[in-house]
Amino acid sequence: MTDAVWVAGVGMTSFGRHPQTSLRALGRVAGLDALTDAASEPAEIGAVYCGSALSLLLQGEGAPGQAIGWELGIRGVPVFNVANACASGATALHLAWRDLAAGLHDCVLVIGVDKALMPKGSVLKVGAADPEVRLGEIFPATFALVAQQHMRRFGTTPAQMAEISVKNHRHGSLNPLAQFNQLLTRQEVLDSMMVADPLTLYSCCPNSDGAAALVLRRQRRGPRDLVLAASVLSSGQYDNPRDFTRWECEIAAAKAAYALAGTGPAGLDVVEVHDAFTICEIVHYEGLGLCAPGAGGALAERGATALGGRVPVNPSGGLLARGHPPGASGVAQVVEIATQLRGEAGARQVPNARVGLAQIMGGSQAGDTQACAVHILRTY
Amino acid sequence: MTDAVWVAGVGMTSFGRHPQTSLRALGRVAGLDALTDAASEPAEIGAVYCGSALSLLLQGEGAPGQAIGWELGIRGVPVFNVANACASGATALHLAWRDLAAGLHDCVLVIGVDKALMPKGSVLKVGAADPEVRLGEIFPATFALVAQQHMRRFGTTPAQMAEISVKNHRHGSLNPLAQFNQLLTRQEVLDSMMVADPLTLYSCCPNSDGAAALVLRRQRRGPRDLVLAASVLSSGQYDNPRDFTRWECEIAAAKAAYALAGTGPAGLDVVEVHDAFTICEIVHYEGLGLCAPGAGGALAERGATALGGRVPVNPSGGLLARGHPPGASGVAQVVEIATQLRGEAGARQVPNARVGLAQIMGGSQAGDTQACAVHILRTY
Repeated sequence: MTDAVWVAGVGMTSFGRHPQTSLRALGRVAGLDALTDAASEPAEIGAVYCGSALSLLLQGEGAPGQAIGWELGIRGVPVFNVANACASGATALHLAWRDLAAGLHDCVLVIGVDKALMPKGSVLKVGAADPEVRLGEIFPATFALVAQQHMRRFGTTPAQMAEISVKNHRHGSLNPLAQFNQLLTRQEVLDSMMVADPLTLYSCCPNSDGAAALVLRRQRRGPRDLVLAASVLSSGQYDNPRDFTRWECEIAAAKAAYALAGTGPAGLDVVEVHDAFTICEIVHYEGLGLCAPGAGGALAERGATALGGRVPVNPSGGLLARGHPPGASGVAQVVEIATQLRGEAGARQVPNARVGLAQIMGGSQAGDTQACAVHILRTY
Repeated sequence: MTDAVWVAGVGMTSFGRHPQTSLRALGRVAGLDALTDAASEPAEIGAVYCGSALSLLLQGEGAPGQAIGWELGIRGVPVFNVANACASGATALHLAWRDLAAGLHDCVLVIGVDKALMPKGSVLKVGAADPEVRLGEIFPATFALVAQQHMRRFGTTPAQMAEISVKNHRHGSLNPLAQFNQLLTRQEVLDSMMVADPLTLYSCCPNSDGAAALVLRRQRRGPRDLVLAASVLSSGQYDNPRDFTRWECEIAAAKAAYALAGTGPAGLDVVEVHDAFTICEIVHYEGLGLCAPGAGGALAERGATALGGRVPVNPSGGLLARGHPPGASGVAQVVEIATQLRGEAGARQVPNARVGLAQIMGGSQAGDTQACAVHILRTY
């Protein structure tokens, strides 16, 4: 097992509003949690991989990894600050996995962090380099197009999409670190303010502040250590810009990850996906092979992906309820999967979970800046 | 030589003002140059490593690597967007070196890019997370403190520091891609507007627009290919905040790089260092072991580091004259070293150059966000 990479420690802050806490302080809390959880000392850490999408733009923090490393007493080692939009944290994890698998380090720290809460009415200056974005195709508009096409092509309904939000808020109500803990009804989701037809307010994830962290090792040291069985990062193929109902890069990443882990969609006990908007989760069901193309809405509607269902998806509450600090979400997903596989998820525990998958994307559907990361963990 | 990493192709735009050219277009120009130079097709590229410090902050471009890859016809492969302040491009190169040395890819593209020119009078919102920066310790102030301490401790003079700018502008006048091509006298440097005592306007590098690119391979394919003999990235030790005249992380990185390359300062034929301010180049002479601690000012004064001297430093013109798009500079340094080792540097050619070193830092001297990258190239 010398080539195995182990998830030895996990940590995260609550996600939500942290107006009085700096970005580096959030990172310190999550990092210290992960170090403590792994029974690791700062001196053991051979490199730091820090994913943050917005730290410089919104916080004036150009090298968050060093700042957080300094707070944790980690000195002198290589620090990689990585950005890949919403996949920033997962990209940092993928780089860490590469270096451990190659034997370049024995133990590393992965941090995902962002403070993304902004004054009401302000629009994030992301993707402003794209003419389409400047003309109005910001994220909700992009994913409304995805939803419209999915509805037209496959008969997916607003009620099915709303079910994603209902489920994830129910899950979030069981997660003490989630941003939102209240339950929503399907009607409340459908009746909330229209953002971009058919996506209503409760169909969209929030911007959030928060951090998550992982300690990875090349050697198993404790009984709670988990195998990081697959780590794949892909970018867009850009070859089907008129088909918004599938992401080629996700399908490719999932296929590669299943091959690496020696499993497939039927072998998954628990899944975290990138539900930035309700429609996204449905598209990801299909991209990951949890159901046939076009069948994602029905899968959600019959409860197969809820806690207690065939394959629970986003037991953490997902981006919709746990919240979405872009740089942190990809790491937080893996924290959730690890917590589930350890059997430490409390009220939202998936019974006997042994294999879990986390999927996240960066960039827009129409744009040329897509990234997709897929990670698979399993118990030893 | 299976573990060797080869620099197979180099490319860069001119540095300076490119108001009508987008960031991704700059990256495309440099990338296409490098691909052509390496006789490489986009389909050969297994991964893209893109260093940019300011792309999202100033250009609204959150995933520049994907955008540039798309422009170049590179699809589906992992793309890493890396930030490490002024060391962003060099950090991207270091990641690429890791993955090639580990055998994860056979051929990759490294891009460094930024558009950093800003409206007159505006101050870059970098490091604003540090209270010291908010209180006024922006970069010129930080390095003025370095200069003051170096003067007091070692007797370094303003005239010696000015000589750095005179030399680098002379070198820049021989580089068709440099931002500044005019010669400066020592008196002109000393008499230019005071920015932060003793650093005058011509003691400070400009903000610039530009891109640079490298194609790296695991196999030597052409007679102009060069060995990337060492690649080291370190971060701050943070243990001597009251001694501003040396960077522990630079000393550590240089030592590790010399060991990897099996050489030392006496074995270097040509060097590029991070002369963001004149005093920086002097400190780097000492950190890299080109002279004893404190002797950097005298080394410059006697012309040892000028073209024609014992070990020419910054034959490209350095940041002071070539210009400084932060994400691009670390890659552009390696482009210059490669050009010199190939004997293709024209009027600024260092005769018989066989071994060259590039050094760059990120973050501030006083702060907790330091990074230092050192790369050594040699002819085969």
